[in-house]
Amino acid sequence: MKAVVLSSGGIDSTTCLAMAVEQSGAESVAALSVVYGQRHARELESAKAVARWYGVRHRVLDLSAVFKDCACPLLAQSGGAVPHGSYAQQQRQASGVVATYVPFRNGLMLSAAASFAMGVFPGEDVGVWIGAHADDAAGNAYPDCSEDFLNEMGMALALGTDEKAILVAPLSSMNKSQVVKAGLDLGAPYHLTWSCYEGGKKPCGQCGTCIDRAEAFRANGVPDPALEEGGRP
Amino acid sequence: MKAVVLSSGGIDSTTCLAMAVEQSGAESVAALSVVYGQRHARELESAKAVARWYGVRHRVLDLSAVFKDCACPLLAQSGGAVPHGSYAQQQRQASGVVATYVPFRNGLMLSAAASFAMGVFPGEDVGVWIGAHADDAAGNAYPDCSEDFLNEMGMALALGTDEKAILVAPLSSMNKSQVVKAGLDLGAPYHLTWSCYEGGKKPCGQCGTCIDRAEAFRANGVPDPALEEGGRP
Repeated sequence: MKAVVLSSGGIDSTTCLAMAVEQSGAESVAALSVVYGQRHARELESAKAVARWYGVRHRVLDLSAVFKDCACPLLAQSGGAVPHGSYAQQQRQASGVVATYVPFRNGLMLSAAASFAMGVFPGEDVGVWIGAHADDAAGNAYPDCSEDFLNEMGMALALGTDEKAILVAPLSSMNKSQVVKAGLDLGAPYHLTWSCYEGGKKPCGQCGTCIDRAEAFRANGVPDPALEEGGRP
Repeated sequence: MKAVVLSSGGIDSTTCLAMAVEQSGAESVAALSVVYGQRHARELESAKAVARWYGVRHRVLDLSAVFKDCACPLLAQSGGAVPHGSYAQQQRQASGVVATYVPFRNGLMLSAAASFAMGVFPGEDVGVWIGAHADDAAGNAYPDCSEDFLNEMGMALALGTDEKAILVAPLSSMNKSQVVKAGLDLGAPYHLTWSCYEGGKKPCGQCGTCIDRAEAFRANGVPDPALEEGGRP
């Protein structure tokens, strides 16, 4: 089966790409990165480098206009600071949603990936891969990462595409450490990835995604290759 | 409740807008039009005119990059001719899908509308309205218009937005004649609308949407106000 893999240039989507290439072969895989108004283009450079590493075609889609009115601190226009501390420490809405939730971003990216998939692989069955994992969904932090959401979205994709687009979320029941283990087993090029919400030369080490990434490598007993000198693209 | 109404400038979405304004008042409603690569901008002019008529804010989102590889004849880049004849007469794939199906367009537009809604009405419950109706779904012509699809997509929207975005599809069990009746009852400004797949000065009268529109007005025993001299914007 063909595969379109949503690729942010981070750990989770790079693990997905490693799995899709392992399963279908590079010529049957396309990576898709979405510009949603993020504060920096650093992660897109990583997404490009990872796609090059695997020799898969890569498309960047700019959907930032959708979020033009959105005040989320992850977005460049917000002007606000990115919250520091792990997800567990972040201030949440009463419902549990964290400040870095970008409204329905995964729904939008999955929909765009399904439409894109049917254009780039016409008439074929295509897996639409997303790297959402259990830590992101925990406590309703990111409602559009939950298994319930992914199940419903998967049914919507299948029904709305005459069953051509099949949602694939292989990490949805894993925590971040298990994701890193799966990627290490496949030789995923983590040295090329970028996770930090900030766009500096080096990861800030203080935002939620930096902290969670560091913990995941620590749990696997290996250093984060992106932190080693000359590790990043 | 607030409302974001997907508005193409045609009959169905204009009827939805009439209903949303009736229900929530113009100040609580925003209209959203999506550029997906359609062959002409004529329908967007109508969408603008309809939004002005109701005094609701209006946003145009360009998502055409998503469909850049798509060969659908509705899209400007295809270079192909728009099929003539009613939907019932159109050539279909074995599964029933018609040539003018644009892959997962409604899924993409609903997702974009949900993300947009939460930016423009932050913290509020927002209805995300779409004018899909039963004729479009008949025989699987447009799989992303079926009630099954809309139900699943509605659940995905609710789950992925912490229940802030609620899909509203008031026409999903109506045929086109019933849609026109509902709009006529509300005084919808059909004289401002555009349905034809072609972008000429006057509707072609031969494409599926022209034929179905004409039949719907005939069934209601009234002339199509957009065909009268000086009727259109």
